[in-house]
Amino acid sequence: MIIQLQNKINLSQREKINEAIKAINYKAAEVKTQYANYLVCIGKNDFDIRSIGSLEGVKDVHRVSESYKLVSRKWKVNHSVVDLGDGVTIGNNGLTIMAGPCSIENETQVRKIVAHLKENSIRIMRGGVFKPRSSPYAFRGLGIEGLKMFSAICRENGIKIITEVMQVSQIAEMHDYVDVFQVGARNSQNFNLLDALGEVDKPVLIKRGMSGTIDELLQSAEYIFSNGNEKLILCERGIRTFENAYRNTFDINAIQVLKDKTHLPVIADPSHGVGIRDYVSKIAMAGAVAGADGVIYEVHEIPEEAASDGQQTLNFEESKLLCQKLRMLEEVRV
Amino acid sequence: MIIQLQNKINLSQREKINEAIKAINYKAAEVKTQYANYLVCIGKNDFDIRSIGSLEGVKDVHRVSESYKLVSRKWKVNHSVVDLGDGVTIGNNGLTIMAGPCSIENETQVRKIVAHLKENSIRIMRGGVFKPRSSPYAFRGLGIEGLKMFSAICRENGIKIITEVMQVSQIAEMHDYVDVFQVGARNSQNFNLLDALGEVDKPVLIKRGMSGTIDELLQSAEYIFSNGNEKLILCERGIRTFENAYRNTFDINAIQVLKDKTHLPVIADPSHGVGIRDYVSKIAMAGAVAGADGVIYEVHEIPEEAASDGQQTLNFEESKLLCQKLRMLEEVRV
Amino acid sequence: MIIQLQNKINLSQREKINEAIKAINYKAAEVKTQYANYLVCIGKNDFDIRSIGSLEGVKDVHRVSESYKLVSRKWKVNHSVVDLGDGVTIGNNGLTIMAGPCSIENETQVRKIVAHLKENSIRIMRGGVFKPRSSPYAFRGLGIEGLKMFSAICRENGIKIITEVMQVSQIAEMHDYVDVFQVGARNSQNFNLLDALGEVDKPVLIKRGMSGTIDELLQSAEYIFSNGNEKLILCERGIRTFENAYRNTFDINAIQVLKDKTHLPVIADPSHGVGIRDYVSKIAMAGAVAGADGVIYEVHEIPEEAASDGQQTLNFEESKLLCQKLRMLEEVRV
Amino acid sequence: MIIQLQNKINLSQREKINEAIKAINYKAAEVKTQYANYLVCIGKNDFDIRSIGSLEGVKDVHRVSESYKLVSRKWKVNHSVVDLGDGVTIGNNGLTIMAGPCSIENETQVRKIVAHLKENSIRIMRGGVFKPRSSPYAFRGLGIEGLKMFSAICRENGIKIITEVMQVSQIAEMHDYVDVFQVGARNSQNFNLLDALGEVDKPVLIKRGMSGTIDELLQSAEYIFSNGNEKLILCERGIRTFENAYRNTFDINAIQVLKDKTHLPVIADPSHGVGIRDYVSKIAMAGAVAGADGVIYEVHEIPEEAASDGQQTLNFEESKLLCQKLRMLEEVRV
Repeated sequence: MIIQLQNKINLSQREKINEAIKAINYKAAEVKTQYANYLVCIGKNDFDIRSIGSLEGVKDVHRVSESYKLVSRKWKVNHSVVDLGDGVTIGNNGLTIMAGPCSIENETQVRKIVAHLKENSIRIMRGGVFKPRSSPYAFRGLGIEGLKMFSAICRENGIKIITEVMQVSQIAEMHDYVDVFQVGARNSQNFNLLDALGEVDKPVLIKRGMSGTIDELLQSAEYIFSNGNEKLILCERGIRTFENAYRNTFDINAIQVLKDKTHLPVIADPSHGVGIRDYVSKIAMAGAVAGADGVIYEVHEIPEEAASDGQQTLNFEESKLLCQKLRMLEEVRV
Repeated sequence: MIIQLQNKINLSQREKINEAIKAINYKAAEVKTQYANYLVCIGKNDFDIRSIGSLEGVKDVHRVSESYKLVSRKWKVNHSVVDLGDGVTIGNNGLTIMAGPCSIENETQVRKIVAHLKENSIRIMRGGVFKPRSSPYAFRGLGIEGLKMFSAICRENGIKIITEVMQVSQIAEMHDYVDVFQVGARNSQNFNLLDALGEVDKPVLIKRGMSGTIDELLQSAEYIFSNGNEKLILCERGIRTFENAYRNTFDINAIQVLKDKTHLPVIADPSHGVGIRDYVSKIAMAGAVAGADGVIYEVHEIPEEAASDGQQTLNFEESKLLCQKLRMLEEVRV
Repeated sequence: MIIQLQNKINLSQREKINEAIKAINYKAAEVKTQYANYLVCIGKNDFDIRSIGSLEGVKDVHRVSESYKLVSRKWKVNHSVVDLGDGVTIGNNGLTIMAGPCSIENETQVRKIVAHLKENSIRIMRGGVFKPRSSPYAFRGLGIEGLKMFSAICRENGIKIITEVMQVSQIAEMHDYVDVFQVGARNSQNFNLLDALGEVDKPVLIKRGMSGTIDELLQSAEYIFSNGNEKLILCERGIRTFENAYRNTFDINAIQVLKDKTHLPVIADPSHGVGIRDYVSKIAMAGAVAGADGVIYEVHEIPEEAASDGQQTLNFEESKLLCQKLRMLEEVRV
Repeated sequence: MIIQLQNKINLSQREKINEAIKAINYKAAEVKTQYANYLVCIGKNDFDIRSIGSLEGVKDVHRVSESYKLVSRKWKVNHSVVDLGDGVTIGNNGLTIMAGPCSIENETQVRKIVAHLKENSIRIMRGGVFKPRSSPYAFRGLGIEGLKMFSAICRENGIKIITEVMQVSQIAEMHDYVDVFQVGARNSQNFNLLDALGEVDKPVLIKRGMSGTIDELLQSAEYIFSNGNEKLILCERGIRTFENAYRNTFDINAIQVLKDKTHLPVIADPSHGVGIRDYVSKIAMAGAVAGADGVIYEVHEIPEEAASDGQQTLNFEESKLLCQKLRMLEEVRV
């Protein structure tokens, strides 16, 4: 059960609510976010929910039987919109496009891609500066100095930034240079990182784990929300299966399942979802007609020379064509 | 290596070709189909392919290193079209829609669905009379009498029939009442059935196995082709993964991978691909923009009362809307 | 619900039982096997099972809620023993060893392997004459003539034969030369084949499908049992996963799960379960301590020259050592 | 290529080695561990390895083509032994048993389990104080104070401790109270954590990821080793598959594959590997005969009342019996 409290609740009202929760043998966790105060109540007894709903100080109350609570659509039926400012939103019925290189490499690269994004009216740029790599000997990204450069160029050009955070100690140093923190597939159940991102007032995009279930993704989102941050975006990026003809199996089914189970926006990542450049655009389009709130893909002036993931990265021409098709589909899917 | 022979080849030309194959230590399997005569040659030595190509009686020759040969696009670059007659084709750049119930139940049911198909300009009806069921105690279909009734109504109305064949002994009795034989997921590697269907001059649609790889699907198609039947259609219908939020994981990636690897048409089955009625239309649309040559889905007047698979079956209104959307997408994807 | 009938039941007793089943709105399927007559009753209503159990002509009655019925341990708590005659049994608390080549190749090969089996007190020989192969161009086995030769040599030497049957039409011709029919992984849900094997009075070993669930394996066994054949053996042979370091993932967990869910004997196939010769013996031993009723593995005088599956086949020395270790473990596991 | 340097190498020798590496266009990463100094050299050119081996200051040199290097058996053929002091070792041909509760709960619980371990000659106790939980509302462990209590009781009794570390900031505070740091499945690719554990001179046990490949596990170990810590132990704990009859699929094949690919010791975790109490002992025994260097399992005085994972936890009697059987098997497997 979730109880949303009135903003102007007084102490005695609050105590009566606590007593009512105790009376039915539930345990309450208090959650304060940017937007509201909630009590997430866990228990097993049956009771009349109206007895809680009628208490003073209670704004709203709902039963949520899922293991995830605050991110469930049983709690909030309307879809949430994440607002990055300057008119850039995610989850507002439209299709938000995010694009950029796998890794930030240097100033020239960033400037060229920023120019490409502006020409195609893309408002959000992706690009990694802390790179999780299977091998310790691979390129691990430019680090915080790379992020500062990346951020300066983007702000100059009205472009928002999404980039991956890998550990708790990076959050503070990255904070001022980032518009959306990204949690990668390998950190999808790094619970300490999720806890810490819950204490930040910046949007967080969480990728589904390598072979994470849909329920696990929602519980990971619940970690962040229950620590105080409602600005959440989910991302389907393919799962691991027995098929070896491509990198991952993009789970097209997951888009609608997620839209049904949660009020959070859902983004499709076709670059990791298939991992083969020739197929990325088709998977992006499939994600769009399946109902995704946006698409995030990898683009580079010369994919063959990218510092990482070149085999799944579009060039500018392919990217331009994809944007045109995605916008045509946006009209069809309404 | 595949060698296509001239139609009017004479014995001495043929012998010289055999000698040339022996000379390089290859073994040749002779394949006669509706359209042509081929020699599929298997071996390991390196040789100058022009020495074969220049022989009299050879129409065409190509190396094909894959384990599947005649179905490979390395052999035939242009996509194959399967023609059902009366202007009904599959693989002709357009999007072919096939729809119908999971099981044929009775005459009234068939007539109602046929009327629905005609209203929506759908020319091919699916419907099972031999049903593979996990449990021996479940409904196994109306059998051959049901097929005769189904066929009579469809022919009356200019509708083509696709239906599943489960074993070799059914082929002859079904032959005259069927336009496309369907091989189900569980029989995807029933090699005796595939062999026998290679000897029939009717199109065959092969579904990917429960957890069959893309290469295995192509090798199953090779079984039929190498027995003499070129009229083949492949069908992606979802694979088994760890995710339990739906029935199967529709492998959207497979559509383009297949279109690249083979010249055969590729059909999407969203009903089995996700298994939940509310999501079927979105998956069908995704399959279409991903490049499928067609879509096959389950429809019933009252899905809740269907003899089988009701939970993944559209009603007439949902089906009508889906057809409209699929046709809009057909224009976008050109 | 399963009802076992008395052998000497009369018509009026039988009718009263039918009426009692109808009265609770259940449907009964009659099953006659080598050993007994059963009524498998399917329905949803709640009722007092004693009202059935007290009827004349009823020998035993139990509720079985699983989708498989007659193979469930809810029906029969004691483990079944399959008796091949001449003192060769499977499921009798001991560890039955079966070994032999992937494919029967020629008389010399069979004689050498038979001699090896006798030296190591192995009483059952495996060996395929009908080989399911992914590619139509691969070796498909010696066929029925090979089986006759194989059978003659084995009978001469007191060795029992297990070999794969691939289609219904082979059952009759194979019948007299076979001691155990094997259903391969790819035919695990070939329901027509299962139906037909239910009508034969010979033991059948069913392999788990490529990615078949444990429940599906049990339902496949139910197909055979419900057609009249109780002499069933189940075989775990590895499942398909994302891991590519070996051929299949041997599901060691499945052994005990199966022993709990069914009364049928369970055999481990380490050759297919891992697919790498060096590891086969260790997996066989693991299967034995995990509680398998037997082990089936591939052995050949010169694995490197085997017609198929040589990479997972033991030579005679390795096989001898494995037998010794398996017999040591047999004592430990008691 | 890996170069092990002489301990007493001088600067000019070192420079000549660097030049030789540059000359063949390789990049060298310097690795200093508790035991030795290495240069891990990455490049693509072909060269005569003897030209490196003959340089002064080079103790040993080998090519290692795998993506993991220092943990490969191509580098070090002899199996590594991890020594915890006081005669407790892992990887020394014997079978090391580790057991304990999922979560440390209180002093009484720890004392009772310690007594049980001593009675059964088990020298290492597992027990979590920082618990990764899918849901943010679940019990997350007693934390550092729990560890101090746990440690005090164990030291008093000559028992070594293995416990999970979840984030970098916990390493320092845990350091003095831990004998083996455990990295859980969900953190198997938490590369920052792995980096940091490479700088500690304490053994680390790394669990395979939920659906991590064997190669990924080895690369995770390479992270720690390449940061300076050679004291590594790998743990197979089951992978995620389509089968739902149990928690995870224990990958029995992985034991031998790992023993072949790496010189590090390999431990089996049957509790997570199957997740069902009744089957844990059989899976432990299977792991032992398959060649594991040890077994880690969950035990509790009253599993039904355990704070977490009770459904896969043995009671004292079951644990005692398992120890006896494991020791019997230890003799068989030699």
